[in-house]
Amino acid sequence: MDALLATYHLTSSGHDIAARAAALALEQSVEMPDAAIRSQFVRANTLAKVASITALSEQHYRVVLALGVATTGYEIGQLMNMLFGNCSLQEDVQLVDVEFPEALHAAFPGPKFGLDGIRDRTGVYARALTCTALKPQGLSAQELGDLCGTFARAGIDVIKDDHGIADQSYARFAERIYACQRAIEQGGQEIGKLACYAPSLSGGPKMLREQIHIAANEGVEMLLVTPMIMGLPVFQELITDDIKVPVLAHPALSGALRIAPPLFYGKLFRMFGADAVIFPNFGGRFSYSAQTCVQLVDAARATPFGNHRASLPVPAGGMSVERVPEMLATYGIDTMLLIGGGLLTAGEELLARSIQFVEKVADASKLAAAA
Amino acid sequence: MDALLATYHLTSSGHDIAARAAALALEQSVEMPDAAIRSQFVRANTLAKVASITALSEQHYRVVLALGVATTGYEIGQLMNMLFGNCSLQEDVQLVDVEFPEALHAAFPGPKFGLDGIRDRTGVYARALTCTALKPQGLSAQELGDLCGTFARAGIDVIKDDHGIADQSYARFAERIYACQRAIEQGGQEIGKLACYAPSLSGGPKMLREQIHIAANEGVEMLLVTPMIMGLPVFQELITDDIKVPVLAHPALSGALRIAPPLFYGKLFRMFGADAVIFPNFGGRFSYSAQTCVQLVDAARATPFGNHRASLPVPAGGMSVERVPEMLATYGIDTMLLIGGGLLTAGEELLARSIQFVEKVADASKLAAAA
Repeated sequence: MDALLATYHLTSSGHDIAARAAALALEQSVEMPDAAIRSQFVRANTLAKVASITALSEQHYRVVLALGVATTGYEIGQLMNMLFGNCSLQEDVQLVDVEFPEALHAAFPGPKFGLDGIRDRTGVYARALTCTALKPQGLSAQELGDLCGTFARAGIDVIKDDHGIADQSYARFAERIYACQRAIEQGGQEIGKLACYAPSLSGGPKMLREQIHIAANEGVEMLLVTPMIMGLPVFQELITDDIKVPVLAHPALSGALRIAPPLFYGKLFRMFGADAVIFPNFGGRFSYSAQTCVQLVDAARATPFGNHRASLPVPAGGMSVERVPEMLATYGIDTMLLIGGGLLTAGEELLARSIQFVEKVADASKLAAAA
Repeated sequence: MDALLATYHLTSSGHDIAARAAALALEQSVEMPDAAIRSQFVRANTLAKVASITALSEQHYRVVLALGVATTGYEIGQLMNMLFGNCSLQEDVQLVDVEFPEALHAAFPGPKFGLDGIRDRTGVYARALTCTALKPQGLSAQELGDLCGTFARAGIDVIKDDHGIADQSYARFAERIYACQRAIEQGGQEIGKLACYAPSLSGGPKMLREQIHIAANEGVEMLLVTPMIMGLPVFQELITDDIKVPVLAHPALSGALRIAPPLFYGKLFRMFGADAVIFPNFGGRFSYSAQTCVQLVDAARATPFGNHRASLPVPAGGMSVERVPEMLATYGIDTMLLIGGGLLTAGEELLARSIQFVEKVADASKLAAAA
């Protein structure tokens, strides 16, 4: 059968591992005992096969399953179901990697713009990009607009909503988009460089489509989405049918999935169409290791990966202006650095610190590009 | 502020717990350092407050946060974001319970049919309901229809698709629905009792709406959905706007969320509108404890819970006919027992074992009702 190869880490004793791997193959495909399979077609085409078992340590094993490509229906939700649907309920199982055959790559759009498209849209080529977040939720549309104006005048490339800013009573979506996009345009006129505002989308498909429509009418050039909150199939449908600008994908709600971050945020988010991928950088408020982050960045932008464009990786989560050189030394310039709270703590000095951020990224990019 | 109370379990040293709890409150609301908050409105209305900290053991604490109700925007996705968006990325955090104020209950539909509505639709009142699954994926539409007919003739109340059956090439959705619903009707004529067929929905909003339309046209009276694969906001939008029959909710992909199962499958799935909730019963292929399952069942059907109807709990996952009396002794008759593979292993004796399942549930229900 034409197969995708899914790699899991399993906790098991050596005595049981062959049986445990076989049980996982049944669980992730036919979901019934092997003895009950009566169809030769099923046995040949939809029953997952154990491709390999490798000991990692005394109680840990790497198990590779070959899953029939046809079982995915070439659809994003069913693909996730095949990879991690039922075994998400089994605590001894982690999904760590997947190799996709070309037929499956071809079924998914990948980024419509990606790293290069975002460079074209922002006009930033020879350095890393800068990004910040409008926050906290609770500010009015006008207050968020004022903040947006300050960041725009500092020359920051992308100004996104905090992902917790939805359609709340204190700053309705339409008012917020109007205030922030106007602030972007005014700031752009003042400094002769136009930032991109990326508002956060929320709600079900109907509300999402309304918000996309409002944003497009206001001239918004980028959007922030949380794929695991809206649902992966919705994410893909919207970027295929409705969204005409690059999307930044935020990892909210997905952190506990027991799917390795380089696979989920690097490969899968990219395959499903994220133009930029925000991830929790090491040494901040979250617990990813440096190695995990480097692997994630490699997966997000390395080629070839199907025929998919590279995604733009966006390290974030408690970063500071002081760490800019270190981050660029780690990831190189094909990245966008996101600093939110680390700018806002400047209080009255917000504009100055934001300019310092922009300058530091420009300077550190020269060093990183030369390295 | 009008608040919802979210209870988390945190791993921390006693020395750090006050700071850790305060950091969690910032993370789940304003997502920036306390010192950077300049708005009194934000401080009073959107900044989460640490309501209590209780030691559970040396390194484990229960922390209750008061989250401003307005921050949820009264929308399912943003509610999940407030409860577990960013902290899903922090491995020391588990979401274990939530108390909702009436204003938030009122914003969510709850089950349109629920336990009582499913009893009305199936005509089953004085006993537990029976349920089985069509599988494995890979069978043709006609083979699934034949299987469906056998189960229908055995008198099983609800016959659902395996949740891995999507819109694959070997059994297209429309053909499958036609074959299975016809088999249900023929079986019903033969034995004078009509089963409910619950096909599995898959895909993005457009495909989902097409499938709902096809199913309604064929006279299908129940649907199977996987809320975390389609996305919770889609789930709620579909049952509010499109779906006119009871929905069974399946937990695929959501098992690793680090949200306590009684909260997620009991309270939240019910609040969001699941008429029946399938969950992995203890002692099967999954790892929930008996206590977790009992708490989940209580949460799914206990009243009052807002003004929401009770959901029908559906224990599943490697169950057998032999365990029917034990399951009914544990959960009582307001439940639906789901046995899939445990029937299919009967091979040529499938009809006989399915009848045995139906009879055993009827008998054990009498005992359970008398107890």
